[in-house]
Amino acid sequence: MSWSEWLAAEAAAREAAGLTRRLNPRAADDPTVDLAGNDYLGLARHPDVRQAAADAALTWGGGAGASRLVTGTLALHAELEHELADYLGQPSALVLSSGYAANLAVVTALADRTAHVISDAHIHASLVDAARLSRARLTVVPHSEVDAVRTALESGDGDRTLVLAESVYSVLGDAAPLTELAELCASYDALLVVDEAHGLGVHGPGLVTRLGLAGHPHVVVTATLSKSLGSQGGAVLGPPALREHLVNRARPFIFDTALAPASTAAALAALRVLRAQPGLSDLVRDRVRTLADALGVVTPDGAVLSIPMPSPRAAVAAQAAALAEGIRVGCFRPPSVPDGISRLRATASAGIAEADWERAVDVLVTVAKEHQ
Amino acid sequence: MSWSEWLAAEAAAREAAGLTRRLNPRAADDPTVDLAGNDYLGLARHPDVRQAAADAALTWGGGAGASRLVTGTLALHAELEHELADYLGQPSALVLSSGYAANLAVVTALADRTAHVISDAHIHASLVDAARLSRARLTVVPHSEVDAVRTALESGDGDRTLVLAESVYSVLGDAAPLTELAELCASYDALLVVDEAHGLGVHGPGLVTRLGLAGHPHVVVTATLSKSLGSQGGAVLGPPALREHLVNRARPFIFDTALAPASTAAALAALRVLRAQPGLSDLVRDRVRTLADALGVVTPDGAVLSIPMPSPRAAVAAQAAALAEGIRVGCFRPPSVPDGISRLRATASAGIAEADWERAVDVLVTVAKEHQ
Repeated sequence: MSWSEWLAAEAAAREAAGLTRRLNPRAADDPTVDLAGNDYLGLARHPDVRQAAADAALTWGGGAGASRLVTGTLALHAELEHELADYLGQPSALVLSSGYAANLAVVTALADRTAHVISDAHIHASLVDAARLSRARLTVVPHSEVDAVRTALESGDGDRTLVLAESVYSVLGDAAPLTELAELCASYDALLVVDEAHGLGVHGPGLVTRLGLAGHPHVVVTATLSKSLGSQGGAVLGPPALREHLVNRARPFIFDTALAPASTAAALAALRVLRAQPGLSDLVRDRVRTLADALGVVTPDGAVLSIPMPSPRAAVAAQAAALAEGIRVGCFRPPSVPDGISRLRATASAGIAEADWERAVDVLVTVAKEHQ
Repeated sequence: MSWSEWLAAEAAAREAAGLTRRLNPRAADDPTVDLAGNDYLGLARHPDVRQAAADAALTWGGGAGASRLVTGTLALHAELEHELADYLGQPSALVLSSGYAANLAVVTALADRTAHVISDAHIHASLVDAARLSRARLTVVPHSEVDAVRTALESGDGDRTLVLAESVYSVLGDAAPLTELAELCASYDALLVVDEAHGLGVHGPGLVTRLGLAGHPHVVVTATLSKSLGSQGGAVLGPPALREHLVNRARPFIFDTALAPASTAAALAALRVLRAQPGLSDLVRDRVRTLADALGVVTPDGAVLSIPMPSPRAAVAAQAAALAEGIRVGCFRPPSVPDGISRLRATASAGIAEADWERAVDVLVTVAKEHQ
């Protein structure tokens, strides 16, 4: 089969399964109320964040001009790393160009063929890819089952084992048993890598910090600057020895252009707004609780609420009905859901105006009821 | 060995080998003349680029707020993709958050365990990682040896084979035999993936386009927005069927937040400057020729000139001597060089003021002579 025939066959198979996905560009003045994105605190459009990004672009230029180890490290990066580490209570931070890159970097720089990676079954795709790329021996354990992690740790040699978890999992919105996992890792001398993509901001400095695990010798954190911090980029937080190791060994860090000045400044400004207004975290959690109660579903630990639907078709129809009312929500269908259940996904954001939020709740309650 | 002991041992080994690398943040008003970065056309600091990035940050916010398939695709992304494809003479383009991500995306979405990847020995780290992550059978062929590629193609089954090349290789600055490789790929029904990271801008729309290979059914292109286009991000260019395949299957695209508004707008503005001022490409190539002639080395096909030095120590000393004169150049030592020869690396950029450029040439000639 030729390449063009292969591409056509793949496309036809997607189309037949109803799984073809398309990009829908949005306008800057799109009036839709967005309950589909990850701008949990509304900081992407906060005036301070916009202005800081604009000022940085004017001062520094459109790009950093090189990789971090050449001449791409700006004083701005150092400032962001310092303040990010300070907020999370971590000794040091390293900023990368995406959360995907941060996860790839930490896992591939620490694990190779001689290492053992134990991964939760619901882990984000970037950590799945990171584990693959590392070529480490991989054990996937059932979601949030601490005993399964213990069994996997016992089966290994205990030397250079990574355990991968998210503080709050994306699809189901549940928190990981981080305290138990950290204790377990300490007793087996394994290293727990916790992705705070959905925890940072929604829980202030994140669950690792809230649980007193920041600075724990067996816990390192990855974070994204593109969700609660309203920008782009990712970070790895942990001891200086880890940071130095990544600077010298992490290929996704070394062989990548540094994060652009505007994105770096946007994340820094968002971080400062969050520190000055810790009530933003309370507001987003209040909103997700309000919406969950209104829908009669369990309140998730993150900002994203999952509404089970009876079929993929019902999920798509409900999503379209909400959009017709000016409310955009996400829709997850197989194979993107770990348990095969189609869902609407609604993000509570502190950035939505109160009247819009109240209307969104009403619309979602009506729509969910009509499509059950 | 515990994790902290392992990190300490790795650091000690680096230190003993003289290979420890450190980040040196630079200030916005750093007066050093930069011949180390990849801002080949000086567009990162072009007034139009700065202003476009600033305006986009004010209009759209600090980040895109979501992945491309959710609500992160902005009208700005569509505009950039349209104009980029048009300039390169390609039917379509897809923008990603980095060149590293673009290379990971195209290779992993096209190749899996059932595919064969034939990679040039000098290929960029991002394509090496992409091939690894794809789990395809991998054949590494000697640098730019077309016969070796033919032998590898003959040894395979000819079905779903990718051949990976760069239009201009980074370390030695030499161009790939693209026409021969494209012909070979056509006759074996393989797909040639050409990374234009160092070709785009330095050779106008890139070597693939200049050689009449844009739109060739057996050639796809990846590019970076962070070098000649002075921003951040990457792109894959090729037929719409490829773009649709990546949108649906490329995990580094699907599971990543969209490129930030300011970076997208910066790349778009830089592209427009480049189209309006094609003389920028001529200027950078003139400069690299001038510098090569002054140093008595062969003129490379890219903007980066490689100056062989007698030892790693001499390379480091020469770099320091140039910096003392206000000229920053790069320094490549083992293990970062494919042939074990230490080098100074000097980037010719069209963005350096003429007087600074002339002084830089003088300094480099003196310094290189003194450290031979």
